[in-house]
Amino acid sequence: MTGAEGPSGRRKQARFMATLCRPSVSVPEHVITMEETLELARERHAGHPQLPLALRLIENTGVRTRHIVQPIEETLKHPGFEDRNKLYEAEAKARVPAVVQRALDDAELLTAEVDLIIYVSCTGFMMPSLTAWLINEMGFDPTTRQLPVAQLGCAAGGAAINRAHDFCTAYPEANVLIVACEFCSLCYQPTDIGVGSLLSNGLFGDGIAAAVVRGRGGEGIRLERNGSYLIPKTDDWITYDVKATGFHFLLDKRVPSTMEPLAPALKDLADDHGWDASGLDFYIVHAGGPRILDDLSTFLHVDPHAFRFSRATLTEYGNIASAVVLDALRRLFDDGGPGDQARGLLAGFGPGITAEMSLGRWHSPGETMR
Amino acid sequence: MTGAEGPSGRRKQARFMATLCRPSVSVPEHVITMEETLELARERHAGHPQLPLALRLIENTGVRTRHIVQPIEETLKHPGFEDRNKLYEAEAKARVPAVVQRALDDAELLTAEVDLIIYVSCTGFMMPSLTAWLINEMGFDPTTRQLPVAQLGCAAGGAAINRAHDFCTAYPEANVLIVACEFCSLCYQPTDIGVGSLLSNGLFGDGIAAAVVRGRGGEGIRLERNGSYLIPKTDDWITYDVKATGFHFLLDKRVPSTMEPLAPALKDLADDHGWDASGLDFYIVHAGGPRILDDLSTFLHVDPHAFRFSRATLTEYGNIASAVVLDALRRLFDDGGPGDQARGLLAGFGPGITAEMSLGRWHSPGETMR
Repeated sequence: MTGAEGPSGRRKQARFMATLCRPSVSVPEHVITMEETLELARERHAGHPQLPLALRLIENTGVRTRHIVQPIEETLKHPGFEDRNKLYEAEAKARVPAVVQRALDDAELLTAEVDLIIYVSCTGFMMPSLTAWLINEMGFDPTTRQLPVAQLGCAAGGAAINRAHDFCTAYPEANVLIVACEFCSLCYQPTDIGVGSLLSNGLFGDGIAAAVVRGRGGEGIRLERNGSYLIPKTDDWITYDVKATGFHFLLDKRVPSTMEPLAPALKDLADDHGWDASGLDFYIVHAGGPRILDDLSTFLHVDPHAFRFSRATLTEYGNIASAVVLDALRRLFDDGGPGDQARGLLAGFGPGITAEMSLGRWHSPGETMR
Repeated sequence: MTGAEGPSGRRKQARFMATLCRPSVSVPEHVITMEETLELARERHAGHPQLPLALRLIENTGVRTRHIVQPIEETLKHPGFEDRNKLYEAEAKARVPAVVQRALDDAELLTAEVDLIIYVSCTGFMMPSLTAWLINEMGFDPTTRQLPVAQLGCAAGGAAINRAHDFCTAYPEANVLIVACEFCSLCYQPTDIGVGSLLSNGLFGDGIAAAVVRGRGGEGIRLERNGSYLIPKTDDWITYDVKATGFHFLLDKRVPSTMEPLAPALKDLADDHGWDASGLDFYIVHAGGPRILDDLSTFLHVDPHAFRFSRATLTEYGNIASAVVLDALRRLFDDGGPGDQARGLLAGFGPGITAEMSLGRWHSPGETMR
């Protein structure tokens, strides 16, 4: 398949274009501040030879607050993988339906009108995934397709958007519900005390996001093209070590430098579409950490201000994994949107190292169509 | 989305039709027979009040041999979730590439021509999934999309076919590689001694399957329509209990009766396509157990002989989870195929309870096209 066969959107009638509608986002009620995080690190790792480095790295994240599903005292305990996973399930069942309902309402869609649910989450594991429960609980049609993805980590938010786009390209009248549910605090591993782990302990937060991709109608981003890119030979840079104690997140120190090899992939995608990746109207990208945003700015030659929505997510919620891109997009909506026909880029980054990228154009039915 | 908007295939030029090509299948070298299974059950569960029932259920499966990645003595030990998962990874890396290469060769495709890899497996967990390693190891293009699915269980084989079909409907020149890698023996849990577990211990086997869905060209099944169906309120009938010891498979005793509510969903899909589900030329379905095949025969009013490929897989390999449908299809190819334009049904069944169904027509380029 060459770029020319990709979904340019121009081949279809304008009324049939996959539109990513306003995401709905919810973060839990328990809050931990940067100061509390630093204090905890000092307390728990006093005497750790690399504590000063870890504290500096945490401070550099710029994460001011994070929201977590339990009070911090509970979060720091490890009751075992089984209990953690049961808690994941209970919290997901308690919190996801309201977020989904708001996303449906915002997209003016009924449950019966959803054809596919893409549920992405790398911080708890259930089989069947939450999709089956959601269909029963919220009254989706039994014929709704289910696509649960647990192994794309932070890239899964971008992947969900892209697979939803593909589905609507295949079935132009279809609607897809995307759900990203991440309780990173339930993957805290007290025995992991490498610098990468200490940094992660200060970086990740919990959050739930949902959004609808409508095949027809809707206000938001009309998705025109998507693509994926794997940086060769980096599959051991972000991994889970799977143990009796659950998922142990391993972060290689080379990860923050990945925007240099990824920026050309973003440029290539834009080039294939006849767009200039440096001159777009909006950028909604995964804010894995501050360096990712700084480097993207550098290597794409884009003003840092362009990444303000991603930075705001990072600052207020921490890295909420696959939900980051959806929350950054929610902030673009809250900001009033970039104006009809504004062109932009969305991208999730995660294990692989994988980028899931897409290009789209803002569409406001109330404004003039080109 | 109504059925009318589904991929009838007739809207497209015939040369652009997603074609599911010959699957390649491999089972490990260690073999355990029904007699050995029964003997082991008698030894290990002597005095178990329900042993006679368990033995009868195992005998009724008709599973004559199963293939497993380790000798049975090793299989019966539980070295911990971590070691099991490491073994899963090592065995997958050792065994999957050859199966993939054969599927590509059979479909006359180079790695560079693959646009999406769908990797389904519910018996080991890796992040990133094997897709990233495969891309690096086998030289797929870095832009190849990755879709790993771990939470659809035995239904994932059907889901992989259907999502591949959707992708080729969206991008008519695309090619999709499907990989199903299941080492069920690595989920053996010695402490689970309910009757459902004893039965499972005698039912599941290990196997790897791969197949290509070509957007253009190829010999095999031209996919025309797909659908999914979730039997309401059965999401706790097939589940994983996730514990420190790994995935514990729980099988409700009502599961074997699920074909009665699923048969109407298969009929509806065929009706929507103008076909009669009782009068098709071939049936390739998940052989979860013998009753599934018997009941499908009853409720679809189809001769039991129609399910001979599924039954052969069950008899020779046991239930190899998501790989069953691909192995049953491989047997249809080995049998010479049903003849050009023959119409058939494929279906995977799994947790949810979910059915992933598709309808297609056999296409042999050498034979006369209608």
